Amino acid sequence: MSKFLSSRFSALEPYTPGEQPRDMKYVKLNTNESPFPPSKKVIKAVNSSEVLKLNLYPDPTGKELISKLAATYGVGEENVFISNGSDDILNFSFMAFCDKEKGVCFPEISYGFYEVYAKLYGLDYKKIPLRSDFSINPENYYSSGKTVVIANPNAPTGLTLSATEIEEILKTNSDSVVIIDEAYVDFGAESCVQLTKQYENLIVVMTYSKSRSLAGGRLGFAIANKNLIADLNTIKYSTNPYNINRLTMAAGIASLDSADYYKKCNQNTIEVREYTKTELEKRGFVLTDSKANFLFAKHPKIGGEKYYLALKSKGVLVRHFGSEKIKDYVRITIGTKAQMDILLKTTDQILREV
Amino acid sequence: MSKFLSSRFSALEPYTPGEQPRDMKYVKLNTNESPFPPSKKVIKAVNSSEVLKLNLYPDPTGKELISKLAATYGVGEENVFISNGSDDILNFSFMAFCDKEKGVCFPEISYGFYEVYAKLYGLDYKKIPLRSDFSINPENYYSSGKTVVIANPNAPTGLTLSATEIEEILKTNSDSVVIIDEAYVDFGAESCVQLTKQYENLIVVMTYSKSRSLAGGRLGFAIANKNLIADLNTIKYSTNPYNINRLTMAAGIASLDSADYYKKCNQNTIEVREYTKTELEKRGFVLTDSKANFLFAKHPKIGGEKYYLALKSKGVLVRHFGSEKIKDYVRITIGTKAQMDILLKTTDQILREV
Repeated sequence: MSKFLSSRFSALEPYTPGEQPRDMKYVKLNTNESPFPPSKKVIKAVNSSEVLKLNLYPDPTGKELISKLAATYGVGEENVFISNGSDDILNFSFMAFCDKEKGVCFPEISYGFYEVYAKLYGLDYKKIPLRSDFSINPENYYSSGKTVVIANPNAPTGLTLSATEIEEILKTNSDSVVIIDEAYVDFGAESCVQLTKQYENLIVVMTYSKSRSLAGGRLGFAIANKNLIADLNTIKYSTNPYNINRLTMAAGIASLDSADYYKKCNQNTIEVREYTKTELEKRGFVLTDSKANFLFAKHPKIGGEKYYLALKSKGVLVRHFGSEKIKDYVRITIGTKAQMDILLKTTDQILREV
Repeated sequence: MSKFLSSRFSALEPYTPGEQPRDMKYVKLNTNESPFPPSKKVIKAVNSSEVLKLNLYPDPTGKELISKLAATYGVGEENVFISNGSDDILNFSFMAFCDKEKGVCFPEISYGFYEVYAKLYGLDYKKIPLRSDFSINPENYYSSGKTVVIANPNAPTGLTLSATEIEEILKTNSDSVVIIDEAYVDFGAESCVQLTKQYENLIVVMTYSKSRSLAGGRLGFAIANKNLIADLNTIKYSTNPYNINRLTMAAGIASLDSADYYKKCNQNTIEVREYTKTELEKRGFVLTDSKANFLFAKHPKIGGEKYYLALKSKGVLVRHFGSEKIKDYVRITIGTKAQMDILLKTTDQILREV
């Protein structure tokens, strides 16, 4: 830290992304990436004639991509916002819809970045406990008086709320924005996108990083009432208007033409998730009923950190979170079946040794 | 605007990027892009085997790119920060180094985004007048008590300060950060990068958008004392850690291996600038002594807006700024010689008609 950093950030603890070690080749099941490459149409769209145009700025309005997203989700172009990954959109939302008067609430156990944003902007924030089975009790969010942020499915538990349950939260929070983070929605949860037509206080945030194999491209989008979208654009055009590069824009457009391919990939991930879950249960693991592209698992005989470290030493990376209530668990990204079989085999080795 | 937008943004006026009209094909001299494509090494680096890896997150630390930038500029890796375009870095710098107690000052006529950032963060800001010839008087920035932001060359004037003049500003502002925005430095100004070794309060911000033909890639970097760089990373990791996509990272690395190509392109731009300047002077224009990849020009017989509109109607786009003190001028990006000859020919037509 320099002596020049504003004192409001002196205690700020940034988000820690999942580790990306370079010391050896791992079976990488720690950052919820898709194991499948982008579609052939994406490969074709990001070609050298596009690269040759990199001397020119991208279209800051992203008109072509927005128009295609609007058609895909059956909403108007004025209901779609695009930005540099869904983190960017969450950041803008915390900026735009929270302040000294309006705090924020989110589940106690959820995507770790929510708390970072709350601290970054010096907000009054409330972490709402989960039920003992890690599920979210929607009633805890009724008439909150705060901006509400819920990941659905939640991370790292993978547990979901139904659209009906979220609708009750929307109804009782008509003076607050409700942000539903649907980063993992394409792996089996119910989307709230259609509720944006009825509820002016709902923002649904989505990403290309998981179900569209584009974590390396950095593209997220949000769907909401046009006034909320206008607010997000006000923030974007006051910080970094050109934040989606030309190639990602081209990849994003081509992805939407490959819906069948991604549906097949996601279906595979769902099947491999259920297979892996069953296999882990056979080995004595306890798991949540995850509807995301990861599992959340603990074993009565080995602590979460010990299991994580043992896997890492044998070349398999999963994610362990240090916080007290989930320290017995690890989060395991669903890769290909072959990768999961390596995880299972390695797990068998580890369990034999404990 | 929605009823949910924080009241602190209710009067915010976002930055207006240069227009990107799609109604016809223009000779586009309005957003200071390079007329030259990226180098062959960049084209080669951003290939389909890279696109195939887009399902994986980029390295958030950008180690390879940072290491190469450090070597290029003769500084340590801990002295380099990379982000999604230099706007992103300016935004982070306003966040990190300004607050209620520490305001900010910048030239009255300069990059329009500085004022947007100042308003976005509710800062006490001071716009410091230029001399009547549009030059910056460095003494006006001595002992400012505020964070200082100066574009060098300045925009849209193209006028420069010497490193010695900036050093005096640094010496008299030891309690404030001085941000030197060198977006246009490679077209003939003196860089302050080496001063970062002596002055812990200096941040030099640079971009790939102009002199490295990568406006569409979104890549900026900053060089500073390691503590300032750590502060910028604190902000980045608290907002959007993965904000440089894989392909831009690859393009950024390959660009640094093509220094000769870009030097030739920039030399061409300098020559075409001087040629265009001379030709415009022959036609009665008054111009600043721009050391950037644009000219700032007015003609006694035609107002800035009228000239801009006349050019636009004839298929040539330049940029006009409405603010009172520069409304007689237009900013003309330097394209290829062929493009500038079209500008000159079109100008001749327009002048014959006034």
